[in-house]
Amino acid sequence: MRINEDRLKNHFEELSQIGKLGDTGVCRPTLSTVEKEAFELVFTWMEEAGMKCRIDHFGNLIGRKEGKDPNAPVLMVGSHLDSQPYGGRFDGVAGVLSGIEAVATLTENEFVPDRPIEVVSFCDEEGWRFGKGLFGSRGILGMLDEGELLNKDKDGVTREQALRHFGCDPDRSFESIYPHGSIHSFLELHIEQGPLLQEKNQPVGIVTGIAGPLWLTVKIKGYSGHAGTVPMTMRQDALVGASEIVALFHEIMKQDPQGSTVGTVGSLSVFPDSRNSIPEEVVFTIDLRDIDLERRNHYENQLRECVANVAEKHQLSYEILEDQNSEPSFCDEWIKDAIRKECQQAGLHAPEMMSGAFHDALIISNTCDYGMIFVRCKDGISHNPAEYASYEDLAIGADVLYGTVLKMMK
Amino acid sequence: MRINEDRLKNHFEELSQIGKLGDTGVCRPTLSTVEKEAFELVFTWMEEAGMKCRIDHFGNLIGRKEGKDPNAPVLMVGSHLDSQPYGGRFDGVAGVLSGIEAVATLTENEFVPDRPIEVVSFCDEEGWRFGKGLFGSRGILGMLDEGELLNKDKDGVTREQALRHFGCDPDRSFESIYPHGSIHSFLELHIEQGPLLQEKNQPVGIVTGIAGPLWLTVKIKGYSGHAGTVPMTMRQDALVGASEIVALFHEIMKQDPQGSTVGTVGSLSVFPDSRNSIPEEVVFTIDLRDIDLERRNHYENQLRECVANVAEKHQLSYEILEDQNSEPSFCDEWIKDAIRKECQQAGLHAPEMMSGAFHDALIISNTCDYGMIFVRCKDGISHNPAEYASYEDLAIGADVLYGTVLKMMK
Repeated sequence: MRINEDRLKNHFEELSQIGKLGDTGVCRPTLSTVEKEAFELVFTWMEEAGMKCRIDHFGNLIGRKEGKDPNAPVLMVGSHLDSQPYGGRFDGVAGVLSGIEAVATLTENEFVPDRPIEVVSFCDEEGWRFGKGLFGSRGILGMLDEGELLNKDKDGVTREQALRHFGCDPDRSFESIYPHGSIHSFLELHIEQGPLLQEKNQPVGIVTGIAGPLWLTVKIKGYSGHAGTVPMTMRQDALVGASEIVALFHEIMKQDPQGSTVGTVGSLSVFPDSRNSIPEEVVFTIDLRDIDLERRNHYENQLRECVANVAEKHQLSYEILEDQNSEPSFCDEWIKDAIRKECQQAGLHAPEMMSGAFHDALIISNTCDYGMIFVRCKDGISHNPAEYASYEDLAIGADVLYGTVLKMMK
Repeated sequence: MRINEDRLKNHFEELSQIGKLGDTGVCRPTLSTVEKEAFELVFTWMEEAGMKCRIDHFGNLIGRKEGKDPNAPVLMVGSHLDSQPYGGRFDGVAGVLSGIEAVATLTENEFVPDRPIEVVSFCDEEGWRFGKGLFGSRGILGMLDEGELLNKDKDGVTREQALRHFGCDPDRSFESIYPHGSIHSFLELHIEQGPLLQEKNQPVGIVTGIAGPLWLTVKIKGYSGHAGTVPMTMRQDALVGASEIVALFHEIMKQDPQGSTVGTVGSLSVFPDSRNSIPEEVVFTIDLRDIDLERRNHYENQLRECVANVAEKHQLSYEILEDQNSEPSFCDEWIKDAIRKECQQAGLHAPEMMSGAFHDALIISNTCDYGMIFVRCKDGISHNPAEYASYEDLAIGADVLYGTVLKMMK
């Protein structure tokens, strides 16, 4: 083991105190004071590892270790420190802390790389606060949507307000964009968030690609009225319609038991949300993912047909908005090969696997080659306080990351 | 017409400005500053009508006109001024304002009744803010549940805090209880909130009884996880379960197209409510009403069976809490007869009908005889800003109320 296992463990334990939820969970919303506190702590660790740090205008925390040629395209390593509202302490954090650990080890070994290396904690990977994720990674590639800064959280705070409160200046965000060609390659370590490595009894896996997520928002509109007086036959109950759609969507997702498709309605709200009024409007989200884009498109069409049928049946109107639509992206061979060799040298039999979860790497793959390393995750549980990866596995992963960085530098 | 139609209309129009929502709606939550403002205005109208006013420790606004025998049991008239969050300007208001109009007419005619007459605006008839309604009417009969003052609204404010903020002292609430025998009889005018009077082309109806509401809260618990990685077959999605129950409950309610049963899921919330996390917990309400208690109990059993089956199918746990369970109550013959004669004298052919909506009268019927007058309501729409009753119909209703009060005094 070349990296410092104890230091890595201490970093995990210290960071898990910030935004702590219950015994093992974390709630660290993007652009919150809690995330700011986490940034300030990680900032010091980046400096100790020999990096110069900054927070850019997209709310990304970036540490940079200069290379022999400061103008050479950068090797970027990273993930995120924001969490789900009811989340775990390893999702995202593992990639940032193992990146810092790799650079700290480079520095301790007085290794001066040819090209600069940067460790990034990307802003708002999770996306639940403002309805669209991968914000910081999209930001630095100039891939934000028009008007996206005006998206509001549940308290009515816009992303722009949150960015300014965080210390960023959205008017100067163009300064934070990386021109095409300025990033040489990207490497991300992440907990698997699925059960495969545990099943195969392996601490580390090599990612072959990332399934593309489709995010929709469905709005169903009916007609409110008194819960005690409107006869059942005269009702246009938006929640009855939405409920039928949620149940049928689940059936659509399960039609092929062998398929890797997953579909989720994670958020749903009712208006006026009064126990003795018939629901007038229901808004809910769709999260649909598949490594097979054709199948994903097929299921999307089935869903749209289902929404239309249910709306007609209950005399409801509806609207479907597309919030995010990413195609699957496959990892680059030479980086997979570097990880493969690194694992072989460490005596690991690392399985190769697709990622059902998306990651900042999915975005960065638009501008450069990329690779990903997975670390075993207990029972595949993530986005939950019970999320767990052992410090032994995380150290093995960080060591593979370190070795891969060395190979990618060459 | 004995009452003052113009004054009544002006009172409606002035009051509809307080808590105004859009062009025709009202949002006047119980124990809010908006309701306080309404109370202050109505207070002055009660005084002008010759009443002495007070707000009791349950948050009821009570105006009293003394009778020849101040110790005689009181004739009580009333309804409520709180509204649904997305409500109309007649629900409840009609009963309070027509009560004031009746007393004002008594006073103008220098009629001194034998017994005292009181006009009451009951606190929190609607019940959505703290999860249980008919608060003020239950309060004055000593019918509150243990611990009920600790119920919280969506912002975490307890009912006790809201009462104190409103100027009430819950520690002295025993002073506001009416001992059994101290209320002689109760009369409430209300908009129909259903389509029957419109269908029969009549401005006014005579209520024969009130359907008993059953209010339940259902909590469904599953297991959260990452929306991109947990295979469909391994999920315990609380929202999928809840949605199936909502859809099936709607089917249970519709099984007898001739039946007067109505059932509504008006409120539903998801935890953690994140678009890329599988829902861990869903809480929703059930509102189930029928004039036929046996049928209502039968449907409740079907619902409970449905919850158990769905929970088993998706490996979810659940809990069902009973928030309110009122039996149907029938109006008293002598008061129906007084209304009937009053209508005949006015040349009205008032239909007799059950009320699917509950009212404060349902509670007060526990301590004394009661009657209710319905006023025609456009398209049966209520609990909606589009709720409408014409001032002509409301004046006819108020005049019937006035005449009925005169008859009930004898």
